[in-house]
Amino acid sequence: SKRHTITLLPGDGIGPEVISVARNVLNLAASIEGIEFKYQELPVGGAALDLTGVPLPEETLLAAKQSDAVLLGAIGGYKWDKNEKHLKPETGLLKLREGLKVFANLRPATVLPQLVDASTLKREVAEGVDLMVVRELTGGIYFGKPRGFGTNENGEEIGFNTEVYAAYEIDRIARVAFETARKRKGKLCSVDKANVLEASMFWRKRIMAIALEYPDVELSHMYVDNAAMQLVRDPKQFDTIVTNNIFGDILSDEASMITGSIGMLPSASLGESGPGLFEPIHGSAPDIAGQDKANPLATILSAAMLLKYGLGEENAAKRIEAAVLDTLNKGFRTGDIYSAGTKLVGCKEMGEEVLKSV
Amino acid sequence: SKRHTITLLPGDGIGPEVISVARNVLNLAASIEGIEFKYQELPVGGAALDLTGVPLPEETLLAAKQSDAVLLGAIGGYKWDKNEKHLKPETGLLKLREGLKVFANLRPATVLPQLVDASTLKREVAEGVDLMVVRELTGGIYFGKPRGFGTNENGEEIGFNTEVYAAYEIDRIARVAFETARKRKGKLCSVDKANVLEASMFWRKRIMAIALEYPDVELSHMYVDNAAMQLVRDPKQFDTIVTNNIFGDILSDEASMITGSIGMLPSASLGESGPGLFEPIHGSAPDIAGQDKANPLATILSAAMLLKYGLGEENAAKRIEAAVLDTLNKGFRTGDIYSAGTKLVGCKEMGEEVLKSV
Ligand SMILES: CC(C)[C@H](C(=O)O)[C@@H](O)C(=O)O
Ligand SMILES: CC(C)[C@H](C(=O)O)[C@@H](O)C(=O)O
Repeated sequence: SKRHTITLLPGDGIGPEVISVARNVLNLAASIEGIEFKYQELPVGGAALDLTGVPLPEETLLAAKQSDAVLLGAIGGYKWDKNEKHLKPETGLLKLREGLKVFANLRPATVLPQLVDASTLKREVAEGVDLMVVRELTGGIYFGKPRGFGTNENGEEIGFNTEVYAAYEIDRIARVAFETARKRKGKLCSVDKANVLEASMFWRKRIMAIALEYPDVELSHMYVDNAAMQLVRDPKQFDTIVTNNIFGDILSDEASMITGSIGMLPSASLGESGPGLFEPIHGSAPDIAGQDKANPLATILSAAMLLKYGLGEENAAKRIEAAVLDTLNKGFRTGDIYSAGTKLVGCKEMGEEVLKSV
Repeated sequence: SKRHTITLLPGDGIGPEVISVARNVLNLAASIEGIEFKYQELPVGGAALDLTGVPLPEETLLAAKQSDAVLLGAIGGYKWDKNEKHLKPETGLLKLREGLKVFANLRPATVLPQLVDASTLKREVAEGVDLMVVRELTGGIYFGKPRGFGTNENGEEIGFNTEVYAAYEIDRIARVAFETARKRKGKLCSVDKANVLEASMFWRKRIMAIALEYPDVELSHMYVDNAAMQLVRDPKQFDTIVTNNIFGDILSDEASMITGSIGMLPSASLGESGPGLFEPIHGSAPDIAGQDKANPLATILSAAMLLKYGLGEENAAKRIEAAVLDTLNKGFRTGDIYSAGTKLVGCKEMGEEVLKSV
């Protein structure tokens, strides 16, 4: 039987609850498929700050790097909100992405027929939405230098950041995006602000260069302000979207809210080689932490992405995805996706129901 | 009787059509209120490129600066899309904003009861939305230096921009936003990405400093990714939003699409002194240009903002706003806001109907 080492990073808020449930689901799917997992659990984010004084301890990054895949719960909370930059939980997450070199962030936004009414969009607009945002994750304004605080030529205090992309950074995310589109409906929309920003003009130029390698994929370009509108107007027009780090942050969150079920959405962050990082797109939800109210399905579906994209274990991944759909079909819902006529369950019970269907 | 000089900049696409209609409405409202206008019409954007080779001729900027208010139609079109940066219509608009020093862009997003069904959001989510985005318009990554193309330390080609804000830039937009919120429901939400960007941390710090001058306004902070979600989830939670140039570009367009009637939304761009710039938030719509299909109401309402914010002519402004509502109540609709049971009209006829109600 195959063996894989998985790093679990529960993190903060509801992180530990959803990770514990997802671990059980992973285990069962693995044992049925004849896969064996070794787990190592380490602190990150606020939890790591409280324990070790830094948001990403060296041991955590090292362990993650040496494993086959990383499953993260969530990070952040009010408690650390006022911390200085290098002591913010978020900084731990950024360092983890950087350390693992996971430059490609895949964020599906799918409206399941069972949950179409959870969307704030009209049924006919939301129904059938199935798009994938491919977000560049280790470059752009998140990491660009110079950055910081200082004074300008008039002696005025300033704060500044640099949006910068090198050709290789755009080329590699473009390839991931074209490959992704090819496996989906063959349509790729590159989002930028090339009517204003040089970084975006360069982005567009490189995307068009790489497009020559993928003549079978239909490429279009859209300005980011228009994309933010089109996601509201008619999200079904999109198949695969590729964009930079900051636009991807904004648009993928917008897209996920359009589905109405943020508690359902997983994500995968992949590099050229080495372990991928898998995490639900929702946050740490400190207000409901420890109350057994969290929706574990996004983390369970992240575990499925881990199996598929991280370990190449397609069968186990499909088993988990099917179990989630089955559980929804039986009517089980956590509070965030509850509607009249369905069965309200907590985080643990939802996990148990999924286990029954695995 | 009072006299004001108004610069009309029709621009491209549907710009000339909507400006011509708005001018008639301005005229009638003015004559009833005993105001006299002198007009000067000048080229900008693609129209200026075709005529003079540059997107903002010196005479246009000079005339605009020396007038009391500027009313712009729209700029841009496929024809000039491939132009180099300094020959893009958009560059003309950016230079105009910079030249007029209009750092405060006010973008209302209102769902009128008559048009609630035009929104893709469910009626109960869209109904009653009434928010104002105060966008910083002459700073940030749109204008920050250094910017351009080059090579990095590894000899790789790069494209780059600088997001930078000086204290005075944040302070002055903050004051406009607090004053705006004070005249509305007294709630201001500042949107940034202070968990990642130094420019945003500095933004937040200055906003909090200026907040001390406005103890009566309720201030909150939100990360931009969350704001993009919350606009979809529950837009009614917002009263006034203040944010930087690029986030404002994205969020104001998203907010406007949430109302479902982009063809209805005006904007005002104001400086410390000197003429304000007033324009519909929609684009130049080259696909319907010259076909008498455009919705002139956004430009007519921009003319109302011009009267109110630009010239202090509140009565004339209210007269125009009331005329627009009246025309909608009578059931007249251009194609973009048409629904069964209403009366479909073209751009000119809509203008004539508004004139009847002024
Ligand atoms: C927590 C934050 C640093 C992070 C980001 O901005 O990338 C989050 O919003 C996300 O999208 O994963
Ligand atoms: C045309 C473009 C330069 C402009 C901007 O990005 O500011 C437009 O999108 C707007 O919002 O007025």
